[in-house]
Amino acid sequence: MKITLIGAGNLATSLALALKKANHEILQVYSRTEESARELAQKLSLEAYTTDLAAINSDSDIYIVALTDNALTQLAPTLSQGRTSALWLHTAGSIPMDTFTCERRGVMYPMQTFSKERIVDFSNIPVFIEASRPEDVSIVKDLAYSITKTVIELSSNERKYLHLAAVFCCNFPNHFATIASQILQEHNIPFSVMLPLIDETIGKLHNMQPRQAQTGPAVRRDQKVMQTHIDILIREQHPELAHIYNIISKSIQDYDQL
Amino acid sequence: MKITLIGAGNLATSLALALKKANHEILQVYSRTEESARELAQKLSLEAYTTDLAAINSDSDIYIVALTDNALTQLAPTLSQGRTSALWLHTAGSIPMDTFTCERRGVMYPMQTFSKERIVDFSNIPVFIEASRPEDVSIVKDLAYSITKTVIELSSNERKYLHLAAVFCCNFPNHFATIASQILQEHNIPFSVMLPLIDETIGKLHNMQPRQAQTGPAVRRDQKVMQTHIDILIREQHPELAHIYNIISKSIQDYDQL
Repeated sequence: MKITLIGAGNLATSLALALKKANHEILQVYSRTEESARELAQKLSLEAYTTDLAAINSDSDIYIVALTDNALTQLAPTLSQGRTSALWLHTAGSIPMDTFTCERRGVMYPMQTFSKERIVDFSNIPVFIEASRPEDVSIVKDLAYSITKTVIELSSNERKYLHLAAVFCCNFPNHFATIASQILQEHNIPFSVMLPLIDETIGKLHNMQPRQAQTGPAVRRDQKVMQTHIDILIREQHPELAHIYNIISKSIQDYDQL
Repeated sequence: MKITLIGAGNLATSLALALKKANHEILQVYSRTEESARELAQKLSLEAYTTDLAAINSDSDIYIVALTDNALTQLAPTLSQGRTSALWLHTAGSIPMDTFTCERRGVMYPMQTFSKERIVDFSNIPVFIEASRPEDVSIVKDLAYSITKTVIELSSNERKYLHLAAVFCCNFPNHFATIASQILQEHNIPFSVMLPLIDETIGKLHNMQPRQAQTGPAVRRDQKVMQTHIDILIREQHPELAHIYNIISKSIQDYDQL
């Protein structure tokens, strides 16, 4: 497969490296900025990169658009013009397939958290796919299976819920780790002491339903501990964290009663 | 060391098994209910268990009180009466050492999430210790090191912050997994598809500061995706989750500006 990658961010970089490793031919890389286009091209040992949308080649079998959701939504309707015989894919969790207006359109959404500093093993990432034509479903499926062992067909509508759940499973817990690290830092306790607890919290999710795995003062209805925590947060000038603590604790108790 | 365990819950059970494995002599187990006292005693191949506080022996070197915070606070001032030559320890994150009124008092707080269904490897759990007398600090330290490789001395005051941080790192993220599993279940998507994402989210915390590891629509300021998620939650009759989504997203953006 001759592939062009439109985008050079964290997801695009991880995906491009996985595609190269699977021996796909990457023809060209586009990025809005010279620096990131060149950087990704170098990682792929590729000379062809551009920052000019008009300079994107017309010879690819597949164009993969891995841009921010805003850029994707803006560019998707026009990008395929003059290249409508190719298959157009995007990689976004929350954008419907039909953001593309061309006939051959689809989605290949690798559900993972990508950071520049960290190369992820693509073969463990579940990739959620979709395409407008049955023949293209097969093509996207084959492409996805060439880089990962978990490929799941999912409609644009279902993918929205998946992405929402991912925010609760990844982005929000990571933010709570940020909050915890701040609390610890203010008292000179290293964040690393939290890692065994965090690892076991996640280890449990591999074997138990999250609802059964719930522990802590809220589910125990331990008002005294909860009040101590709220008092600490207010005393240490974190009223917004006290508010978050209250709301999440109440939610834990509401779910426990269901 | 001759040890008596007061309590037979999840933490007490894990701790008792670790102490037995380290060849400490457990003299007796107390629990409020016959069933859990007997169950733990059986796991320890021990005949001496009781549900009567007055029947607790007076021959132990160390009494470890692993009760709920409420029960601990109620019983601590009187439990040691008649046994004041022994060392009294509790295992609670949020209760000060001085909840005991006897002279030889201390804390041994294993920071972990304990569930009955799951036996944890105690040797990986950081144990936070404290004692009123320097000689007893040594005793508690030796006892802790006999069951784990990470022992940290921490005052009652600092331990409060640690416990608060643990709620943010463990209990709250687990609840978000519960919320995610509900959203997925409503659309027949198995929760297991989330595990690679969850594992990588945590994997990053071993190598990056949580603040740097933050990804997702809130930190990207992707208003469109956030609004889509809010709309979904409201449409699906989860206004309280829409509220949580808003508050956490705002907090992510506030921290990102610090």
